[in-house]
This record gives sequence, structure tokens and C-alpha cells, in this order.
Amino acid sequence: MLHPDRLFPLDPTARTLARTLYDTVSDLPIVSPHGHTDPRWFAENEAFPDPAQLFVVPDHYVFRMLYSQGIDLTALGVPRVDGGMTETDGRKIWRLFAENFHLFRATPSRMWLDHAFEDVFGLTTRLSAQTADQTYDHIADCLTKPEFRPRALFERFNIEVIATTESPLDELKWHETIRASGWDGRVVTAYRPDPVVDPQFEGFATNIERFGQLADVDATSWSGYLEAHRNRRAFFKSYGATSSDHGHPSARTEDLPQDQAKALFDKALTGRITPDEADAFRGHMLTEMARMSLEDGLVLQIHPGSYRNHSAGIMAKHGRDKGFDIPTRTDYVRALKPLLDAVGMEKDLTVILFTLDETSYSRELAPLAGAYPALKLGPAWWFFDSPDGMRRFRETTTETAGFYNTVGFNDDTRAFCSIPARHDVARRVDCAYLAELVLTGRLEEDEAQELAGDLAYGLAKKAYRL
Amino acid sequence: MLHPDRLFPLDPTARTLARTLYDTVSDLPIVSPHGHTDPRWFAENEAFPDPAQLFVVPDHYVFRMLYSQGIDLTALGVPRVDGGMTETDGRKIWRLFAENFHLFRATPSRMWLDHAFEDVFGLTTRLSAQTADQTYDHIADCLTKPEFRPRALFERFNIEVIATTESPLDELKWHETIRASGWDGRVVTAYRPDPVVDPQFEGFATNIERFGQLADVDATSWSGYLEAHRNRRAFFKSYGATSSDHGHPSARTEDLPQDQAKALFDKALTGRITPDEADAFRGHMLTEMARMSLEDGLVLQIHPGSYRNHSAGIMAKHGRDKGFDIPTRTDYVRALKPLLDAVGMEKDLTVILFTLDETSYSRELAPLAGAYPALKLGPAWWFFDSPDGMRRFRETTTETAGFYNTVGFNDDTRAFCSIPARHDVARRVDCAYLAELVLTGRLEEDEAQELAGDLAYGLAKKAYRL
Amino acid sequence: MLHPDRLFPLDPTARTLARTLYDTVSDLPIVSPHGHTDPRWFAENEAFPDPAQLFVVPDHYVFRMLYSQGIDLTALGVPRVDGGMTETDGRKIWRLFAENFHLFRATPSRMWLDHAFEDVFGLTTRLSAQTADQTYDHIADCLTKPEFRPRALFERFNIEVIATTESPLDELKWHETIRASGWDGRVVTAYRPDPVVDPQFEGFATNIERFGQLADVDATSWSGYLEAHRNRRAFFKSYGATSSDHGHPSARTEDLPQDQAKALFDKALTGRITPDEADAFRGHMLTEMARMSLEDGLVLQIHPGSYRNHSAGIMAKHGRDKGFDIPTRTDYVRALKPLLDAVGMEKDLTVILFTLDETSYSRELAPLAGAYPALKLGPAWWFFDSPDGMRRFRETTTETAGFYNTVGFNDDTRAFCSIPARHDVARRVDCAYLAELVLTGRLEEDEAQELAGDLAYGLAKKAYRL
Repeated sequence: MLHPDRLFPLDPTARTLARTLYDTVSDLPIVSPHGHTDPRWFAENEAFPDPAQLFVVPDHYVFRMLYSQGIDLTALGVPRVDGGMTETDGRKIWRLFAENFHLFRATPSRMWLDHAFEDVFGLTTRLSAQTADQTYDHIADCLTKPEFRPRALFERFNIEVIATTESPLDELKWHETIRASGWDGRVVTAYRPDPVVDPQFEGFATNIERFGQLADVDATSWSGYLEAHRNRRAFFKSYGATSSDHGHPSARTEDLPQDQAKALFDKALTGRITPDEADAFRGHMLTEMARMSLEDGLVLQIHPGSYRNHSAGIMAKHGRDKGFDIPTRTDYVRALKPLLDAVGMEKDLTVILFTLDETSYSRELAPLAGAYPALKLGPAWWFFDSPDGMRRFRETTTETAGFYNTVGFNDDTRAFCSIPARHDVARRVDCAYLAELVLTGRLEEDEAQELAGDLAYGLAKKAYRL
Repeated sequence: MLHPDRLFPLDPTARTLARTLYDTVSDLPIVSPHGHTDPRWFAENEAFPDPAQLFVVPDHYVFRMLYSQGIDLTALGVPRVDGGMTETDGRKIWRLFAENFHLFRATPSRMWLDHAFEDVFGLTTRLSAQTADQTYDHIADCLTKPEFRPRALFERFNIEVIATTESPLDELKWHETIRASGWDGRVVTAYRPDPVVDPQFEGFATNIERFGQLADVDATSWSGYLEAHRNRRAFFKSYGATSSDHGHPSARTEDLPQDQAKALFDKALTGRITPDEADAFRGHMLTEMARMSLEDGLVLQIHPGSYRNHSAGIMAKHGRDKGFDIPTRTDYVRALKPLLDAVGMEKDLTVILFTLDETSYSRELAPLAGAYPALKLGPAWWFFDSPDGMRRFRETTTETAGFYNTVGFNDDTRAFCSIPARHDVARRVDCAYLAELVLTGRLEEDEAQELAGDLAYGLAKKAYRL
Repeated sequence: MLHPDRLFPLDPTARTLARTLYDTVSDLPIVSPHGHTDPRWFAENEAFPDPAQLFVVPDHYVFRMLYSQGIDLTALGVPRVDGGMTETDGRKIWRLFAENFHLFRATPSRMWLDHAFEDVFGLTTRLSAQTADQTYDHIADCLTKPEFRPRALFERFNIEVIATTESPLDELKWHETIRASGWDGRVVTAYRPDPVVDPQFEGFATNIERFGQLADVDATSWSGYLEAHRNRRAFFKSYGATSSDHGHPSARTEDLPQDQAKALFDKALTGRITPDEADAFRGHMLTEMARMSLEDGLVLQIHPGSYRNHSAGIMAKHGRDKGFDIPTRTDYVRALKPLLDAVGMEKDLTVILFTLDETSYSRELAPLAGAYPALKLGPAWWFFDSPDGMRRFRETTTETAGFYNTVGFNDDTRAFCSIPARHDVARRVDCAYLAELVLTGRLEEDEAQELAGDLAYGLAKKAYRL
């Protein structure tokens, strides 16, 4: 199923050069500095459940596409908020998925799935209604074997280091279990404080209370709250964290006087904060986090611009993160100015910007990252973690920001088996781009060679301090 | 004039595959589910007037380009609002057009014109000042012959079905004439209620009165008004309509409580409605139309984002639709939420979204259509009904929404002779795209083959229920 | 270092055709209708100072990229506002530049630099830490020779005419010196009135006073102010000016009643004008300038959308124009309507629009320029003056506006040695685009040939009336 020259240029000379470049990076270890795998997998090292639970039920890329064509989420086993009936028979879910596999034609999900089916599970025929049962049985059988347990796959995938993402309210017990186990796979955490930074997050006040308990300070005062962040960041660092991550609706930042920030925090605790004040508070906290990064060295990631849980109906029936997070137009130039005026010139700070609004690449993000020392551009993200998305990222950022203001690849996934596929896609797309630069006289071959390694491996390690 | 491999990839292998795919779809019948041809042509089956009246005077793509380079619209025969002098000598208009034919280089108008000149009229030399007269004479001569009458061309163009667009105030007498004639060409109408849905439309109150008369209800009450829509939709359905069409300045939707909607309607009738209230009313009516679609099965099309009649001077002198409709930035994520919360999860509803703002394809439209069952994406439209526009449409929607959340091609034209050319361009561009997907390992050839037929024919029939 | 077929298509047939087209235009004279070279160079014809002063210190493309990677601007010799220490040793600056030359990989700066190094100075090895000293010595040695003086280079670069840019407060003494010298190089000025049109410009009231003195009228009254513009425009015309240039934060235009305009002007003089009023005044002045253009024939250029001097820290330490001008989203459809309603239909007026927001090309600018006789589109500008930027410009404007609503190339640079390189890049990119159009059946070869010359030379001369 996997074309050996997939994603390389059509022109034979360019294809040959792309392959040559790719051959030197295809076996490099995977550095995965940002993602959502479950540390419990590596802690317990239990077998993954059935094929549907591995490939369909948890993957919102997969089930939202099926849903968009009229297939009920309950028929796909997606859990309900009310605990009501949802399909539990993996084989039934798998058949429904297989019958509709044509919906994924030319999508990145299809590439990732085919890659996992062939490379991880050794399948060689395309999924379809006809092959559904045999595929299901084959994968199910594999999953019973030791070489398909999480740690074995981690090693087989050649993962040098992987970051998970946890809230400050997490006690990191699975990370502790991994550490205590003596297994030498490197699984690190990352600090994602949305539940204690976003006044509109469910249970904000309760979260702050718990936050204080975990940090062993009174987090309900402004100074205690900041201290709690410092403590939890240090705790996360002790479990390998090198970064924090912030998923706000917009890129707004603020650098408020401390008394104003304190006043917003007090309002947030009472729940009587307006939406705009909540937005200002989140924006101010980005600048506070950046200042803490200057102290403790954590890399700060900003993931803005998603309208979360767009469908009221899906939110009510199935809850968060069910494929209804929709990108919105996002401005950076005015939004980031407060943070940049405060810390943008700091050479020892790294702020990594992501976007779901491609129009900002050439217009705003590349010019900003090509000027401010603290800024770097994160890779093509989420809806753009795809061959065309990655190509457009390079074509619209490189001429202004160069390669060295970018940070390599993020897989940003909870779909463990897709990780090698995603990194492979990124490496192929980058090598195709480099080959075309060489053959159009914009880069020399030795430079392309060096860059291929940087983009596949070196830049991610360096930018994330891993 | 027509390159046999036009619009195919440059790479020889990809070109061969694109041609192979194209050869299987080039002769498929034309399904034209959305357009602006005049039903009177097919009703009366009279000869088209002279070449200028066929190709220049009614085509705003053509005369606006000439106007942009300093040629008066009156010299091109475009009628004046005040009934004043405008050129009536077809040959003079044609010569002016021919002398300036270089202005159309590399535009889609040029492709459509060359296609019609060669394929419909058998011309083989490029239009120019030198060839103006001989071309004019040749086409004029053709137009006198029976095989160039509207119905003969309809059949020669292999049109399986074509939709025209009428207002609810239209009595559909030309459609009735066609039906009564016994001719078996399938010409259906579509329901475009702008004059009775947009409070800012000229003569809104008068229109509502006439609307009620035609629907045989009192349309000046809110409930009577809704009933009038139901009646006229049923009437349109009886003349083959399978869709409604809505051309609003923005994508705003509302789902207001009935008493609020009624209050806006009452204000609209008095003419004392503010622009924002008018916008809210239009937005609410989209949701009402969607609810009626759930009852009667009409497909709902939203064509937003055009700043109509931008030039005050042209509007005053020549009136509406004279090439001065300019696209504007359009947001969908917030704008569509009221409608989507009301009916977005309905599997039996089809809402087709168009855009004049390409930035929304990858950022908003593909993610929305790739999630909501009711949503589908219309093809590249108007300014983007062009080879590069179509290619960008596929490149920015497919990875997120796939192919099956799109609906094939619309020619959306009143230029009858351009219809085969437009469908041919779409089929070529899609086959080129599919060939490149196959040769970069993103699709297998049998899948590309199936998709070529779906994109050229199957999806339009299915989505529009034709 | 320079690939002979750089920037041509990969496909061999297309590459051959692109080269054939390019060969017919590569030696055409350079018409440079918009730029920022220093007329003093041509007036005094002194040797350029050292290599660092020629290539690094004045080029914000170069030093901002180095700064973005943590290199201090003072180490690069960039002057400080407070006159404090900055590096003055050219060789030290050059070494730092050379050590970090990899940062420019695949950027247009790299292409321009390599072109200048090889074509102007005869260097054949890539700049690096290893070659820093030998390169420095070689260029420094060249700069001492007569054939590297400004006038000699001007002639060697085959510049037919070049426009500089001056404020109405400039007495044009260097232009007078050039004229008096008897040298026949054609160096013309352009009228850039920001200091006397923008109420937020530093020293606005003082500027107006000086403006009046130079124009020999009382410019502190509204009618005197307009008269002063007329006088200075006539003075600039006497030094060859054929255009004015306007760099506003947005594309806003206004066409206010004269008493309102007068009132804003009076407020501006007192300094008690609000930011929005200042914006309205600037917008109104565009329409006034357009009306003067109708009288005196100067072409009006609008360069909107840059957030100037984004970093407060850099502005404080190093002042304006230090690589921190960041593009912003820019709307044209509503913004330009007042000006277009006033003068947009005038055939004898030429308004050239530029953008830093690529999303407006296909959505707004091409439709506007493809309709209004007064409008033309300026070339890909600033961050988009690059191979991919130019290609996107053609791909997103040609299908709607054609080629003849565009105006050829602008180098818009103060980096004198980069001028041949920039024009060469534009000619190559255009020929590549034309070749692909021919081979995909969208243009015939004789048309491509004619267009190659128009895009490289003819359109700029015609549009700028040079």
C-alpha cells in the first residue's frame, strides 16, 4: 500500500534527489517534543485493546469524518456524557469504519492508517468492506503479542524522547511509575495550565484550590498563585518537562500592572469575571509564564485560534474534543505586542508560535519570527499536519524567516501507531521541498543535506532543549 | 487553438495518467445544478442574436475586463439605466472586443471563449483585430442555422439536466412553456428568494404583497409569510426545483425566537428596519429555509460574501450586475453557528456552502464540512471558477474534508456557450489533481478512476438530488 | 554559485521554454520606477565604503535575520539613537555575517547576495566563516576602483531610469547636482509626502511650516496647504518625478466635504487630533492627491498595511526602519470605496495598489483592478519580493485581472548592488510562469514571448509614464 517514493516531486531528477536526501534521515530517531500519548500506556505496558479501540474510537480525525457523512458517533463507540448506550462491539465498529474507508481518500488520516497497517501490523491489502474481518482479526491477534505492547512499540518506533501533556493538577503518577520501573524509554511531561489559567475553564475556583494543595501554597492570593505555578513547573521539570503549552482561543497577550492582574484574578475566583476580562487574564498569564520561562528555562508554546466544541449538540451528548474544534481567523501582530515588548528581545527565552490560520504564516508569523530573538515558528499543526499543509508552511515561511527560526516537527497526537507515519510524512515533504530548492538554484546540495537532518531531528532537540 | 493536453500536469508520466483518467469522463453528460441561463431560450427556441450579443454584451467577465482598460461600457453595447445611447452595431462591438483580445491572456474567459469558438463554431484562428470580421461573419452565419438554436445546442452539449434560477415572484411561465412543448430537455428551476427575504431589496414591501398574491395567502403576517414560502417552494418543486439559493452579503445566520423574527419582519415591511436588523432578518431566514428544507427536501445553497455593485457611478449609469461585485472577507465559524446548532446535525438536510474568500477553505469551511452532517462544500466559485482557483480549492479542502463532502461542479453561468468549456476545465483540473495524488502515493489508481467519475458527474447528481 | 537555470520549472520541456523566453529579456535595460537608492551616490560618485557598510549595516533584511537568531544589532554596526557604542570595524561585522550566512538559506537575501558577489564582484565561492576574510578583502579592493563607483555600476547594471524617493521637505539638491554634472544617467525623484500628510508623523506642525516656506505659500491654511502640495509636486516633476508614494498603516480612503477636511487639518496642526481623525485625514489626503494627479499626471502609489516599528525596545534603541515593520491584515473593498467613487472611473488616472496581505490578491485586489480603469496592481512587495511570493502574485491575480492591469516589477530597494539580482529574479519567475501557461494550453508561445518583454520592461515604463 505504501508507495516507496510517496510525497516526492513528480519530476524524475527532483524525485531522485529527494530520495537521496530522505535516505539519510529516514532512520533518524524520533524526537517528539509535543504530543498527547497517555503515559499510563508506558507505565503499565498493558496490551492495547481491540483494533477499533486503537484506531477509531479515540481518534477524532477518524470519527468526525465518518460522522460528517451521517454515521452516528454512538455506532462508532464514542462514549456519551450521560453514560448511555454506545457501541462496544469492536468488530461492528471496525466493519462500519472499513465500509466507509473511501471517505478518507487523499486525507492524511488515510496515509497514517495505511502506514500503521503496513509498517506496524504487516498488512498488505487496502481496508474495505471485503477485508474488514480479516484485518480486524490480524490486528487483534497482533495486539496479544508482547512485541505490540506500548514499550516494545516505543522502541521499535525508534523514539528517542516523547513528551506527554499534563495539567498542573496532575500528580504525574504514571510518569513516576515509568521512572520507578527502570525502563529506559524517555517519556517526559509538559506543563499545560489551562484549567488554572483560564477563568472560563469548568471548575476554575475549585481547580485553584487543588492547585494550591498540590503546590503547598495558598493559591487563592495572587502572589500565592504565581508561587504555585513556580512550584508546579519545578515539579514538572523534575519529570523531564522542558516546555509549557497554552491553548487559548486567541493569541491575545497582555502585560498588565500587577495590581490589575491581581484584581482580575480575584474576580476570576469569584466567577464574576466578564468574558473580555477572562480573555485579558489569559493573555496576561502568557506574559507571566514567559517571565517564569526566563527563570526556569521552560520553552513556552502558544497554540491559539481554535473555537472549541463548536457544536452545542455534540458537546451536550458526547462532551469535549469530539472533532468539533474549528479554526478561526487569528491575528498576531497586535495580539502579541504586549508579550513581545516585555520579553521578545530575550535571547534566552524560546516562545514557539503555532497557528490554525494559514494566512498568518507569510503575513505575520514569518516576519515576527524573522525579527524577534525569542520567537520561533512551530510546524504546520492539526488540520495542516498534512503533505499540502506542510508544503504551504515551508513555502510561506522560509523566504522570510528562514529554516532556523522553525523548530522541526511535532506529531501532537494521541494516536500512538501514527507517530512513525507522521514523522515520515514530515521528513518526505521537507526533503521534497529541499530537493526542489536545490534544482531551482536556491540552495546547494550540501546545504540541503545538512538541513534535512536539522529539520528531521536537530532543530526539535535544540529548540525544545531535549 | 485548444491544446489537447491543456491543464494537465507538466510531468510526462503524470500527464499521461491525467489524460487516461480524463478520457473516461470527458464524454459524461453535463449535470448543471446551479446556473443562470434564461429558460426563455429553451421555451421559444429562437436563434441567438448576433455574436456580440452572444459573447460580449451580457458577459460581465468580458466587458469589465475591457472597461478596466479604459473602454467605455456604452461602446460595448451595455444598456444604460436612463435608456440613453449605447452601441447597437454588433460588428462594431465585436471589433473592439477583438482588438483587445490580448487583455484576456491566461484568464478563464479566454479559455471559455476559445473553447466555444473552436468546439461550438468550428473556428481555428485566434481572435484578433485581423480576424475580427471573418470571425463575426462566421458566427453570425452559424446562428442562423437550426443546429445553433438553444435546444439543439442543449442536446449537442450533452446536458442531462440544467437548473435555472428564479425568484418566488416569477410565475415560471417559460418553464411551463418548455413543459407544454413536449421537448424532453430537462430544465429545472431553483428557488432564489432574495427579493422577499432581504429587507434592503428594492421594493421589499411591494414584493411581499405580490408574493402573497402568487402564493394565495396574506404574506404580510409572519405566519402567512412563512406559508407563502412553503407554497412557492412547492410550486417551484413542481417545476423540477431541487434547491434554493441565497446570496447574502455575509454568512450570518440567526435562529431567533419566533416573536423576535416576527417583529423584524413587521419592521421590514414598514421600511423602518436598521441595516443590522435587516442583516439579522436575512440570517434568520436562512435557518427558516433550512427548516423548510427538512420538510420538502430542497437543498439549501449559501452564496455569501459579495459586495454588490461596488461602484456608485456604474450602478447609477448601468445598474446592477455590471462586473462590480467585489468579494469580501467572510467568516463562517461564528456566523453559521446559529443555523448549525439548529439543524447542522440533520442527516437528511443538505446545506451547500460557497465562498469568495479562499482563506476560509482550509481554515473554516473544510473543518466545518468535515464535521457537520448537513454541510457540504460547493465548488470553486465565480472569480475562482478557473484552473488555478479549482486547484487551490482541492489543495485546501481535500485533506480535511475529503472528496465526499464536496458536490462536484457548478458552472453558475448565463453564458450558454461556455457551459461545455467550463465543465471541461473542471474535469481536466480534477483529473490532473487525481493523477498527482496517485503518483505521489496518496491514492491508488482504481480509486482515482472512481473519483474522476464522481467529481465530474456523480457527486453533483447525488448532492442536488437530481 | 549561480545556477544558470535557477528559478525555472523542474520539468525539462518547461525549463527549456522558460530559458528561451528569458534569453530574450535578460538583457533588457532596467526600469526601476520605485526605490530608495540615495541620489547622493550618483551626485558625488564617491567610492562605496567597506563591504560591511555596503551589504550588512544598511540592509534591514540582513541584520534583522541575524538579530532574530540572537546577534546584537550593535555587533552588526547598526547605529544607536543615543549615539552610543556600535561596531565600526567592517571586518568584524563581516566575519559575524559570514559565520551566520547559513541563516539565509533559501531566502531572497541569499539569492541577491550571491548574485551581487558573483556578478558584480566576481566571487565564486560561497560566503562562510572560512571565506570571510578573503571575500572581505576582495570586495574592499574592488570598491577602491573606478569601475565600482556608483555611476559606473549604474551604467554596468544597464539602468535606463531609476526613481528615488524624497519628502516634499527635501530640496532635491543631490538631484540638482546630478543634473548640473552633465552625467546622462537618468535618476528621477518621487513625491512621498508622509511627513506633511500624516498628522502623527514626528514634528507634523513644524513640517507644515517648512513645507510652506519651500512652496512659498502659507501652508497652515487648508487652501494654502493644498497649494503647497501643488507647488512641490510641480517642483518634483521638474526633477523627473512621475509618481507619488503613500505608505499608510491601512488602505483607508475618505472623500470628505472640504470644510470637514479643513477642520481635521486645523486639528492636526494643533496636535489635538485623535488617532481615528488622523487616519481619516490621511485617507482624505489620498483622494486629494488623486485629484491632483488628474491635473498633473503623477501616478499615485498606495503602499498600505505595515505596522511600523513594532518593537518598542528596538525603536527606542535604534530608531525607525530596523526590520520591525510587520505586515497586517488589510482590507481594500470598503477602504478604497470613497476614493474610487470620486476618481476610480477616470481613464487618465493611474493608482497603483500594493499589499503586504497576500490574501487580498485574489479576493479583493484582482477583482478591483479588473474593473476600475484607474486601478493597477503593483508587483509582489517587500516580504513577497521573492520567488515564491512573485509566483503566488501571478497565480492569484492573473486569472481575474490579467497581465495588463499589472505594472511590471519594482525593486523598491536601497541595496544598490541587489538591483540587477532582483530584476533578474522577477524576469526568471515570470518566464517560468509563462512557460507553464504555454505548456498547459493557457497561452500561445508568441503571446508568452510578447508578455515576457512587457513584464520585464514595457509595462513599468508605460504605467509609470517613464
